[in-house]
Amino acid sequence: MGLGDDWFTEISADAGSAFSLRLKTKLHEEQTPFQTIAIYDTQGFGRLMVIDGCTMLSSRENFLYHEMLAHPALFTHPAPRRVAIIGGGDCGTLREVLKHREVEEATQIDIDERVTRLAEQYFPELTASNRDPRARLLFDDGIRWVRQAEPGSLDVIIVDSTDPVGPAEGLFSAAFYADCLRALGAGGLLVQQSESPLYHLHILREMHPAMRTAGFADTKTLFFPQTIYPSGWWSATLARKADAIEGFRVGAAAAREFETLYYNAEIHQAALAEPEFFRRALREAAGG
Amino acid sequence: MGLGDDWFTEISADAGSAFSLRLKTKLHEEQTPFQTIAIYDTQGFGRLMVIDGCTMLSSRENFLYHEMLAHPALFTHPAPRRVAIIGGGDCGTLREVLKHREVEEATQIDIDERVTRLAEQYFPELTASNRDPRARLLFDDGIRWVRQAEPGSLDVIIVDSTDPVGPAEGLFSAAFYADCLRALGAGGLLVQQSESPLYHLHILREMHPAMRTAGFADTKTLFFPQTIYPSGWWSATLARKADAIEGFRVGAAAAREFETLYYNAEIHQAALAEPEFFRRALREAAGG
Repeated sequence: MGLGDDWFTEISADAGSAFSLRLKTKLHEEQTPFQTIAIYDTQGFGRLMVIDGCTMLSSRENFLYHEMLAHPALFTHPAPRRVAIIGGGDCGTLREVLKHREVEEATQIDIDERVTRLAEQYFPELTASNRDPRARLLFDDGIRWVRQAEPGSLDVIIVDSTDPVGPAEGLFSAAFYADCLRALGAGGLLVQQSESPLYHLHILREMHPAMRTAGFADTKTLFFPQTIYPSGWWSATLARKADAIEGFRVGAAAAREFETLYYNAEIHQAALAEPEFFRRALREAAGG
Repeated sequence: MGLGDDWFTEISADAGSAFSLRLKTKLHEEQTPFQTIAIYDTQGFGRLMVIDGCTMLSSRENFLYHEMLAHPALFTHPAPRRVAIIGGGDCGTLREVLKHREVEEATQIDIDERVTRLAEQYFPELTASNRDPRARLLFDDGIRWVRQAEPGSLDVIIVDSTDPVGPAEGLFSAAFYADCLRALGAGGLLVQQSESPLYHLHILREMHPAMRTAGFADTKTLFFPQTIYPSGWWSATLARKADAIEGFRVGAAAAREFETLYYNAEIHQAALAEPEFFRRALREAAGG
């Protein structure tokens, strides 16, 4: 039972699986200095952005990813005023960050300006907050930006990147984590998209010790569904500069004054629950 | 970018998505009096069972589904001694149920004996507990079986069925729920696989009021990842005869003497967290 030409398919070669979305039409395709970006109109998922053959986001389900990258970190930090987003050019994470009133400045540093320009055109709901006076959009190398950031100048760093190959590879390194640690203030938090718990367990096994080696006091992975990413199950990993991650501003999360589609205080707590196989894998990685 | 002939693809027509697994070889295919069953060897997911064109289970990830169908219900009931599994012919749920020492009798009623015979041959790890003296395998109509069950004779009923079309349709009806209620003892629990929270929200919206109309005192949906099912995100819904579902035997779950790959006490609690969009949909369904 094959799929016709009117489907976009992303193959996960190592896992031997593939996920496909039925298309109405291709709206745009271009080769930027960094990557190939394509925009489609799909039958059931609204608009779809594809970068280098990998699904990045769709209108229908990007809320899962963007909410889970922003809100758990921001409700864990006691007073998140200064936030940086590395990558995140579609501006969906920025939009979620700006929903927090405590945030005074949110800087988004994506290497490819075209992602943002195409998001403005094809996903206007994601870029709706870009004119917020607290938002600062830079198109630059995020790794260098963090390296040059003033020590202690950030409360939360969100790494909203593509997979750890190509331009994003350096974002999964101990050197980058050390730069993040230095740029964070006391109580500072890093949160990074960390791939599929089922398909990319090796990445998660290496990330935790790398973050701790860089000097982070505590690390913890968040789990959430993400239909259009390989395996349909995704993660983001929190690292905290000097304190334990356990616990968050539950009252503030429950009483939040903004709308969400997935996130709430119970979902935040739930996302911290570690599947048994993951707990075992991390224990083994720690030599325990 | 099409997939070659060496892929099995399940299309979710309404959602406009598809999930595919790369095959090594087809091991078996037959038409039973009830359905078509195919068994494949895949590149990355071990063995795969397909019924009427829908992926049923694979060696690699069936633990998610089987553990979440069995353990939350059994650790919610204070003393689960008498368990019935409607459907579940692959015996994976039965195996998880029999891990509980308190269980004195576990009866599996699947309409199609061929599912079990093929599981014995191609998924022997799932049928490994079938000779447990507490296991009773019946090949019969589960709906009729429940209707004829002695009132109050069961502690937990697990509905481990295919999608609500064809032979399984009657398992999603108020009449069936009323029969379950009658067959359950005081404190009794029903748990039913309840499709994808993203793709089949309408089924979940109808299921809760249908269960309450049948007389169940409380209902609650469990959420968990399930890579090979549509959307990669799945659910099971609990219904309790006379008590609230909130709370479970946390100590027993944490101190359990058997192995799991996904389930633990934190995962149990986490699975009960309702996504914001789901909470809203249920509130609207209840007219609130």
